[in-house]
Amino acid sequence: MAVITLTTDFGTLDPYVGIMKGVILTICPDANIVDITHHIEQGDILCGSIILRESYRFFPKGSVHVAVVDPGVGGERRPIAISGDGYFFVGPDNGIFWPIIEGLRDFKVVHLKEPRFFLKEISYTFHGRDIFAPVAAHLLKGVDILDMGDPISDPVKLKIPTCTIGDDTIEGEVIRVDRFGNLITNIDKESLDRFKGKTLKGIYLNDLQIAKKISKSYEEAGKGNFLAIVGSSNLLEISLSMRNACKKLNLSRDQAIGKKIKVIYK
Amino acid sequence: MAVITLTTDFGTLDPYVGIMKGVILTICPDANIVDITHHIEQGDILCGSIILRESYRFFPKGSVHVAVVDPGVGGERRPIAISGDGYFFVGPDNGIFWPIIEGLRDFKVVHLKEPRFFLKEISYTFHGRDIFAPVAAHLLKGVDILDMGDPISDPVKLKIPTCTIGDDTIEGEVIRVDRFGNLITNIDKESLDRFKGKTLKGIYLNDLQIAKKISKSYEEAGKGNFLAIVGSSNLLEISLSMRNACKKLNLSRDQAIGKKIKVIYK
Amino acid sequence: MAVITLTTDFGTLDPYVGIMKGVILTICPDANIVDITHHIEQGDILCGSIILRESYRFFPKGSVHVAVVDPGVGGERRPIAISGDGYFFVGPDNGIFWPIIEGLRDFKVVHLKEPRFFLKEISYTFHGRDIFAPVAAHLLKGVDILDMGDPISDPVKLKIPTCTIGDDTIEGEVIRVDRFGNLITNIDKESLDRFKGKTLKGIYLNDLQIAKKISKSYEEAGKGNFLAIVGSSNLLEISLSMRNACKKLNLSRDQAIGKKIKVIYK
Repeated sequence: MAVITLTTDFGTLDPYVGIMKGVILTICPDANIVDITHHIEQGDILCGSIILRESYRFFPKGSVHVAVVDPGVGGERRPIAISGDGYFFVGPDNGIFWPIIEGLRDFKVVHLKEPRFFLKEISYTFHGRDIFAPVAAHLLKGVDILDMGDPISDPVKLKIPTCTIGDDTIEGEVIRVDRFGNLITNIDKESLDRFKGKTLKGIYLNDLQIAKKISKSYEEAGKGNFLAIVGSSNLLEISLSMRNACKKLNLSRDQAIGKKIKVIYK
Repeated sequence: MAVITLTTDFGTLDPYVGIMKGVILTICPDANIVDITHHIEQGDILCGSIILRESYRFFPKGSVHVAVVDPGVGGERRPIAISGDGYFFVGPDNGIFWPIIEGLRDFKVVHLKEPRFFLKEISYTFHGRDIFAPVAAHLLKGVDILDMGDPISDPVKLKIPTCTIGDDTIEGEVIRVDRFGNLITNIDKESLDRFKGKTLKGIYLNDLQIAKKISKSYEEAGKGNFLAIVGSSNLLEISLSMRNACKKLNLSRDQAIGKKIKVIYK
Repeated sequence: MAVITLTTDFGTLDPYVGIMKGVILTICPDANIVDITHHIEQGDILCGSIILRESYRFFPKGSVHVAVVDPGVGGERRPIAISGDGYFFVGPDNGIFWPIIEGLRDFKVVHLKEPRFFLKEISYTFHGRDIFAPVAAHLLKGVDILDMGDPISDPVKLKIPTCTIGDDTIEGEVIRVDRFGNLITNIDKESLDRFKGKTLKGIYLNDLQIAKKISKSYEEAGKGNFLAIVGSSNLLEISLSMRNACKKLNLSRDQAIGKKIKVIYK
């Protein structure tokens, strides 16, 4: 019962995700298919990338992670599969896997070229169904990734912005907003740990002081108050206890992404 | 590990879909249940029908497709099961399966009447749970469809509108709008192929020229431009490269459905 | 193929639900995971409780029901597991399971304390991933609940409001609004049955007469008319035939919850 995960911008209004699952189960009937999310904004490769990087390690080794945020479908972009650190990744070569590749100890990237691992007819608009789903199913069945195409050494790169460490400050930005309105930043626990022992002056969103300390629970701040907390992906998050921080700040998701966050020490 | 698919208008806010899965797994613990969509508009039988017709073939033979868009639940409409071309279908007799039946080589339709294949208590409002889920599970376990009720020859009919072919034109209409705002028409690839060799004058939505040719990728048209493309279900689609065509045209989904589309040759 | 169900307020925008599934499948590869819903309003423990109580019995005995509506995550609230009547329940001790516990013939509640059944690192904000998912997986694998922590006798209580029976009236309130806009009340079939033989005067929402009888199907009332019907969870519901009752009454979901409903007999 090996696992295939799906991360797409297909939504759940249309039958596209279900159809991909049908294709997978036709080829590999005992695949265990898990949805990560299908609600990536249309074509938002960076967001897909952040979500996938946060998720893939929690699945059993041998899992195949399929990501289809694919605005270039039908065009020149290459379909690829990657193996590394015991996982597989399948999708378009548009950078979505790059932040993961950067963290892998060793890996192979293959340009998918063998039509015998695809559906017979390839549409112009739905390679999730015609290429990526069947390739994932064949990988799960044990086909060698090197039999599926040619190794490449130049996959498209994509940078998730990182934080900058100064003498008394860490400067970062909001990279994701979750369902609860938590503003997830790119300031990671490791960077914060470098300042251990120093006294915190405050955490700021632009010039607004959000918090004077880093909390260890939402409750601690008291209902309706802003707080800063190290979230589940080991990144600093700006939250509102029992409420929606993003709404309270009168920001849309899109407006919140990229907002500057500073952690200042005395 | 045979497959049961679910297509409903239940949404995912309520526990209704989960409860159906609980009922199925109680009867047939190794059923593999796949959601096609639960976001059909309340009572929109035609849309359910279009989506199911687009999807069912991509699942392994032996799959049981359950569709519950059932405004007549608790009333006179019959609960039915269908077998044909290696697939099963279970749901209300309101036409939702008719466009599939029309395309099957041979088929049987049975009016479900045997309470031993239902839950013990039948509610007035949730036959998805009380009748259709248990029947699907029993079919998956190998119960003969003919043991479940009486064959009928008059299932309710439902027509998905088809396109009209003239000397130099194909006239159709928008039948579905997907998450990306693509306007999916009823002009199929076969109809377009009849005009192979002829020169295209243009593709029109009412009097608006959308495109002068049929594209082979979204990219080809350039970001933010309208295009016409043969989509993944072999139907002509009106799209906006990397954007939402439906929004750009200032149409709601409901307004877009039924809009006239013309393909005109010189 | 035993079953784990998930009921959360995580939504489906973020990878949180998928990650919980990855954790479960890493520990128990043949777990069959079913979503009940992830669209509970943020922190709405009462709604989570109502939905879970409505659902859990429809799953096979041995199922583990995980509920994560957990505003107190990282704070003082205890993580618990419950066994009773052949089912297991795992989540925060905030009352979400209390209405189920009240109905169990016998049960044990355990304060989860054994880190060997958790992930190695426990975050401040995501015990669904770090505690509840792994505990559920271990329960499914057969670990004895009593090996997971200390039995407790004082789980947090939570009351779902109940209806009041008078000489000629039943007084209740709306406790849930479903996707279709049906107003689900706390007036149960058993209470209605006590008045069998008596003549109904009417069913009222505040002073508005909704219906003069209890219908047996939506159709019966005629399209666009209000009706009262005993719904699938054996509770009286206020509906609008083929339409959305909640919208027609110009009520938001939140406004509808708690509205007084009276059934008056002559």
